[in-house]
Amino acid sequence: MDSSTFYYRYVTLSIFEVEGSSMRIAELSRAAEVPVPTIKYYLREGLLPPGELTSPNQAQYGQLHLERLRLVRALVEVGRLPIATIRELLADLERPDPDLHHILGCSLKPTSDLIDREGPSAASAEVDELIERRGWHVGSEAPARRVVAEVLTAMRQLDADDLAARLDDYAAVAEQIAAIDLDSVGRRGEPAAILYGAVVGTVLGDTLIAGLRRLAQENASARQFGHREA
Amino acid sequence: MDSSTFYYRYVTLSIFEVEGSSMRIAELSRAAEVPVPTIKYYLREGLLPPGELTSPNQAQYGQLHLERLRLVRALVEVGRLPIATIRELLADLERPDPDLHHILGCSLKPTSDLIDREGPSAASAEVDELIERRGWHVGSEAPARRVVAEVLTAMRQLDADDLAARLDDYAAVAEQIAAIDLDSVGRRGEPAAILYGAVVGTVLGDTLIAGLRRLAQENASARQFGHREA
Repeated sequence: MDSSTFYYRYVTLSIFEVEGSSMRIAELSRAAEVPVPTIKYYLREGLLPPGELTSPNQAQYGQLHLERLRLVRALVEVGRLPIATIRELLADLERPDPDLHHILGCSLKPTSDLIDREGPSAASAEVDELIERRGWHVGSEAPARRVVAEVLTAMRQLDADDLAARLDDYAAVAEQIAAIDLDSVGRRGEPAAILYGAVVGTVLGDTLIAGLRRLAQENASARQFGHREA
Repeated sequence: MDSSTFYYRYVTLSIFEVEGSSMRIAELSRAAEVPVPTIKYYLREGLLPPGELTSPNQAQYGQLHLERLRLVRALVEVGRLPIATIRELLADLERPDPDLHHILGCSLKPTSDLIDREGPSAASAEVDELIERRGWHVGSEAPARRVVAEVLTAMRQLDADDLAARLDDYAAVAEQIAAIDLDSVGRRGEPAAILYGAVVGTVLGDTLIAGLRRLAQENASARQFGHREA
């Protein structure tokens, strides 16, 4: 073994050791792909526990910081949740027996321009009835109630009552989607991993479902209307 | 009958007559809820056929203009389609036997930030295989292929391979959604009405499905994790 091989092994081992157990903020930044100023911001906001001080100006971070940082990044960048909400979610996760249903409920606010509108929605009674009809356990303040009501109202304003009339058909499919969603994240045993999966899966899942819907629509349209190229 | 009643009847009748058959641009604007400058823009761009000139400075518009204007507004505001695309779609609709499959394909481009990214996607072969496996008739240039591939890539970058692995489950549900979509709009016999319904139903439908998914998720989460409030 010549000296360069030895040096290579030494460097490799020391990187593994640092990544696995203890690292400075710059190394944590590289490992999590989060800029150092952002990590410092998360530390100030209490979204990341402080590192272990090894000198007055230097702290060491471990594997738990890395995992927490990845979760926070997903909640901020993918879930677009407010910092205050994330702080509450993380506090809830720290409890001995975290209330996952509550945690997931807080993390899965719908991201839609539609819910910013003011005033009561004409179709909200209709959504209440849908939820009752399907026996869904849904809180009276769930923002998605309003999203659905606003879409129904918008469809009718656009003279598409026939589309709004298919509400129950779409609700039945949404039930199947939610069953897949919950089955996927439920297999992640650990509460923080379930929260992470729920946020990533719900937000990216909306785009995934919209994309697959377009492909399936093209197929259905080809079969229904596309006789000329057969 | 006193004179005020007579006047009322006269005014009412004349409004009905104008709305039903012939109206000036200001009346067309009120009836379609589209501002006059916007109507003039659509006229200049050829999205609306010119009215019938009754004097060098005045044109009359009819019921067909009103319907066309509502369709153009839906394509612009709901579908967010480029003007050039709308012009082509309208020209295709004018043909004696419009190719609805082609028209719907052009109108249903996915609206996602994800497809703006450059370069080949790692997961595109996977999407090809999915389409083959399900026997879907989908053009090789369909932008939704890329949307699905980018979501799969993003999920894996975010360490959510387990969610990406449920692709076939979500595809099966997307097939059901598309069947509802096509059944709804297919019942609208007239090609322009089918196009209108497809754009409104697809764009608003994405939000409807996302909202219903949140409600169904809350229900599934209550049943799976919500033991404490039983």
